[in-house]
Amino acid sequence: MTRFVLGSASQGRLGVLRQAGIDPEVVVSDVDEDALLASLDPELPPEAVVAKLANAKALSVAAALPQELLADCVVLGCDSMLYLDGRLSGKPGTPEAARRQWEQMAGTTGHLLTGHALLRLRDGVITHTEGDTGSTAVHFGRPSEAELTRYVDSGEPIHVAGAFTLDGLGGWFIDGIDGDPSNVIGVSLPLVQRLISRTGLSISEFWTR
Amino acid sequence: MTRFVLGSASQGRLGVLRQAGIDPEVVVSDVDEDALLASLDPELPPEAVVAKLANAKALSVAAALPQELLADCVVLGCDSMLYLDGRLSGKPGTPEAARRQWEQMAGTTGHLLTGHALLRLRDGVITHTEGDTGSTAVHFGRPSEAELTRYVDSGEPIHVAGAFTLDGLGGWFIDGIDGDPSNVIGVSLPLVQRLISRTGLSISEFWTR
Repeated sequence: MTRFVLGSASQGRLGVLRQAGIDPEVVVSDVDEDALLASLDPELPPEAVVAKLANAKALSVAAALPQELLADCVVLGCDSMLYLDGRLSGKPGTPEAARRQWEQMAGTTGHLLTGHALLRLRDGVITHTEGDTGSTAVHFGRPSEAELTRYVDSGEPIHVAGAFTLDGLGGWFIDGIDGDPSNVIGVSLPLVQRLISRTGLSISEFWTR
Repeated sequence: MTRFVLGSASQGRLGVLRQAGIDPEVVVSDVDEDALLASLDPELPPEAVVAKLANAKALSVAAALPQELLADCVVLGCDSMLYLDGRLSGKPGTPEAARRQWEQMAGTTGHLLTGHALLRLRDGVITHTEGDTGSTAVHFGRPSEAELTRYVDSGEPIHVAGAFTLDGLGGWFIDGIDGDPSNVIGVSLPLVQRLISRTGLSISEFWTR
């Protein structure tokens, strides 16, 4: 049986896959994202930036797999950022930065980009390398001052790309999206379904229910 | 403290609210939906049909509340249907009907309509009646024959409006949406946030985290 390896520590991504019937092995990459970002051509389009990060994560995870997974598995690497006003934003990191981000983006539209890299391994050899970037437009609402304070105080927006969660308290303040909602949480189900089918497998082979 | 009452047995709706920080009391209505639907003017626009059902559910639940909730609560009633090719579809009910629905809608776009009715009660009296219908365009993918068989066999599409789940196995076969994803699952968070604010409350008062 082919195993599904998620190369990410994100609880959001794990939750999306589990809700959709897959219970992946989780193997976290040790990619230095900041160093990799600093090494990239600054003219690279935003879709290519998240694709490069996703690819680096998938390769790092593939290189560290235990023997029983190397025999027959797929490895998925993902990287998400918010593209807003011509700029890519990752995780704000502090409450102050999360608040500034919301003051800037309330009432506007950004694009949540998630790069995906899927490797298929058989007997320790990478037989397929597939990848694509999903883009979903996100229309931000206008939380009141009190609501924004309460949201930032919850801690939720601080450690997520773009300082918002669609699958948490932030859902109250996202008026709508155009595109795939799972891409916003960090792993696009229809995109992964297509990548999987390009490796000759079907996504339903991985379902546990 | 004002309590939040969800007037629905839907696990999907409960999951959306919990993920978004609310742990509602669940009180299920005893509205005869088929009888109510049959009594409606057939010329009623689809948005009004789900609004009427949502309102009937909220009123039925409000009439059956235990004393401790009657003192100070909001009651939310919801009803969801898929509008496709000029026709409203509820739950298919059988595997055969779910399969037929998918054969019809694969590769096309439908609109998931969710009617919302929000009542505020103080000391046993309804002080506010608010309502609105959310509409989200859903772009259906094209599952392979084997994937569709596997999906129908899972049982998931049989008992949900429109024969698909965005928050389950069906997520692999929804290419994208335009609008609010929580509305597709059966309760629109930004819409409820607006209805709550019209009653003089703030949604963040109900958050448990």
